Amino acid sequence: MHSIHHTVAIELGARSYPIEIADALITQGRTRDLAFPAGTAAMVVSNTLVQPLYAQALAQRLHPHYGRVHTVTLPDGEAHKDWQTLNLIFEALLTHGCDRKTVLFALGGGVVGDMTGFAAACYMRGVPFVQVPTTLLAQVDSSVGGKTAINHRLGKNMIGAFYQPRLVVCDLSTLDTLPERELSAGLAEVIKYGPIADMAFFDWLEAHMDALRARDKVALAHVVRRCCEIKAEVVAQDERESGLRAILNFGHTFGHAIETGMGYGAWLHGEGVAAGMVMAGELSLRLGLVDGRFVQRLRALLARAGLPTQAPVLDARDNAARYLQLMRVDKKAEAGEIRFVLIDGPGRALVRPAPDALVREVIDACCAG
Amino acid sequence: MHSIHHTVAIELGARSYPIEIADALITQGRTRDLAFPAGTAAMVVSNTLVQPLYAQALAQRLHPHYGRVHTVTLPDGEAHKDWQTLNLIFEALLTHGCDRKTVLFALGGGVVGDMTGFAAACYMRGVPFVQVPTTLLAQVDSSVGGKTAINHRLGKNMIGAFYQPRLVVCDLSTLDTLPERELSAGLAEVIKYGPIADMAFFDWLEAHMDALRARDKVALAHVVRRCCEIKAEVVAQDERESGLRAILNFGHTFGHAIETGMGYGAWLHGEGVAAGMVMAGELSLRLGLVDGRFVQRLRALLARAGLPTQAPVLDARDNAARYLQLMRVDKKAEAGEIRFVLIDGPGRALVRPAPDALVREVIDACCAG
Ligand SMILES: NC(=O)c1ccc[n+]([C@@H]2O[C@H](COP(=O)([O-])OP(=O)(O)OC[C@H]3O[C@@H](n4cnc5c(N)ncnc54)[C@H](O)[C@@H]3O)[C@@H](O)[C@H]2O)c1
Ligand SMILES: NC(=O)c1ccc[n+]([C@@H]2O[C@H](COP(=O)([O-])OP(=O)(O)OC[C@H]3O[C@@H](n4cnc5c(N)ncnc54)[C@H](O)[C@@H]3O)[C@@H](O)[C@H]2O)c1
Ligand SMILES: [Zn+2]
Ligand SMILES: [Zn+2]
Repeated sequence: MHSIHHTVAIELGARSYPIEIADALITQGRTRDLAFPAGTAAMVVSNTLVQPLYAQALAQRLHPHYGRVHTVTLPDGEAHKDWQTLNLIFEALLTHGCDRKTVLFALGGGVVGDMTGFAAACYMRGVPFVQVPTTLLAQVDSSVGGKTAINHRLGKNMIGAFYQPRLVVCDLSTLDTLPERELSAGLAEVIKYGPIADMAFFDWLEAHMDALRARDKVALAHVVRRCCEIKAEVVAQDERESGLRAILNFGHTFGHAIETGMGYGAWLHGEGVAAGMVMAGELSLRLGLVDGRFVQRLRALLARAGLPTQAPVLDARDNAARYLQLMRVDKKAEAGEIRFVLIDGPGRALVRPAPDALVREVIDACCAG
Repeated sequence: MHSIHHTVAIELGARSYPIEIADALITQGRTRDLAFPAGTAAMVVSNTLVQPLYAQALAQRLHPHYGRVHTVTLPDGEAHKDWQTLNLIFEALLTHGCDRKTVLFALGGGVVGDMTGFAAACYMRGVPFVQVPTTLLAQVDSSVGGKTAINHRLGKNMIGAFYQPRLVVCDLSTLDTLPERELSAGLAEVIKYGPIADMAFFDWLEAHMDALRARDKVALAHVVRRCCEIKAEVVAQDERESGLRAILNFGHTFGHAIETGMGYGAWLHGEGVAAGMVMAGELSLRLGLVDGRFVQRLRALLARAGLPTQAPVLDARDNAARYLQLMRVDKKAEAGEIRFVLIDGPGRALVRPAPDALVREVIDACCAG
């Protein structure tokens, strides 16, 4: 039953930590498999959807390790990834008299993970925290690497911190309750790792996409492990995103424009990234960096993952102008210059600006009315 | 005219930075004396009181170094050291389209410094910032060491970050406009450094207290330099306050109880610390760590600095119980155990708990009805 158990080590000197990947980690005990950071109390942070599913099981696992186990339940969804919701965590910590040795547990998807991580970074100037990601996206992406944030009315993820967890616990069985569309959105980030870093993994995904969509645990375990390994390698070289780490944003420049342009919530993050990867692929093609066959394979795999490969029209009057405008105010833009993550031969990424005319051509080619 | 110019180096590896101490740094130009961190834009953060005094002069100094110089003016006072005010900084940054290479300048006392530092720590997960402290307390204490924070309804400085500035600019002439009472409050933190680290400095203070209160620039320059040196040494050994750094809180355990117990604003922080140091001195005396003459010298110097040496009664019914209760919920307490900074022979501090009965005795002896 517990035959699958991978451990990936994140090497960041004093801030190193393990990622434990296995089935039924939360629901079926086995606390001795996991080394929790020591502390006087635990605070399990989840949301209204995830809390009833897994919070009690997790709290039970934590009780032998901590004197007190508290819980706080946030409203669900990206719309609540803001200061007001963050403050619910602070209120709970302060009301329970939690000190600097309290350990926060982020039980949920990327929204809960990003907020709990940021709360841990700020509470009394920093307390330990553990990621317990329950979406595929969070297991392969957001819970690894130490980026935490909340949104601001004027921009997404604008307020945050680089703050590493002490441990990441990926329980594959939690993915069983994940809605199909959320699973697909997570697969977009999975597929991303192929073109930027490992085309053998891309081949493997082509062979195992059906198993993944059927939530086969052995296939999922391989995917979570390999994605974490790749992300770990990139993050170890560039913890604070001053260069290399930007390649993880393949598809995200266009993707963020789609998310913002459509209004948050209309497209899931992974869906925007999927269409965005096709656009970034097309841009790479037009710059002579990849051939048409690569873009075709990318499009086909995304479609099999249940993801959109056509971008939406954001403005009927001048669609390309709207995309360019949105991309120029992106956090990664510098003094208004858009930096695209491009594929420089499948398996390798580079970051550079591109001529507006070419970008317009790509937008016109990729958008469906 | 510019004969006084000290530089203190804070050694924290990749996060090292200089403290520049001189007269008329802001008001009279000489930008070439100072190396500002490079950036696309500068954002000068001050408050309604300080802005009219020094913001224009600073902005003029910055213009040759940055393409754009923006300003944001916060409401004045500890009561506004909260999320709502912090958000004014974020709003200004986002409204002006400030990117990751924007440098924040904290122009003001400890409140502006703590908030600007925390805003810099969080904006886009971290942008550079410069401290330009304009109170004595901020020059000798709060702007050095990288502690940043805002208050929470349920506790002071509860939400924050360890985040180092790139540069600290102490302009001694800004202290000319400081109200007498604020100058004295700053002197409490100055006097603190003697008993915990350097009794020769304490001797020097006894000889120069009148010059300091007359705001003699040569005397002030010496004080700011020596305090920064001592704090730098402590911080270099314990950046994230896991041990040694706690000695900087001499007088603060009792002091915080006074501040909270009287309601914020009634006693200035430095005033609470002054009375608190007398109490911690009395506790050290009762533990046989110092003699009565030391406590008497401490009391006398504080009085000459214009500071209170008698603590207030916080509760007419059971004053000692109220003090103990307030100290037990202090952020530095661990699982309700109060850790006192005591003087272990003048010039050396240690941190340890003390018997309740003894603490009660001290409170009874030090409080004036
Ligand atoms: N920190 C990073 O490096 C990083 C990277 C990528 C994305 N992110 C952030 O992650 C967020 C997106 O994460 P997400 O896709 O996980 O979204 P999410 O957290 O909103 O989760 C998606 C939905 O699934 C629900 N859910 C979670 N686990 C479930 C389960 N096991 N069963 C049933 N439902 C479940 C959630 O409550 C939510 O309704 C965004 O805010 C994004 O900015 C961060
Ligand atoms: N970060 C740290 O390590 C640390 C250490 C100690 C204290 N602090 C914090 O510092 C704050 C106290 O700092 P403070 O004592 O500087 O208080 P403050 O910032 O409120 O300044 C005191 C008053 O003087 C005014 N002022 C500032 N400069 C002036 C000038 N040059 N002329 C005239 N008026 C001037 C201010 O506007 C304010 O009204 C507290 O919030 C405390 O928590 C932080
Ligand atoms: Zn993403
Ligand atoms: Zn102080």
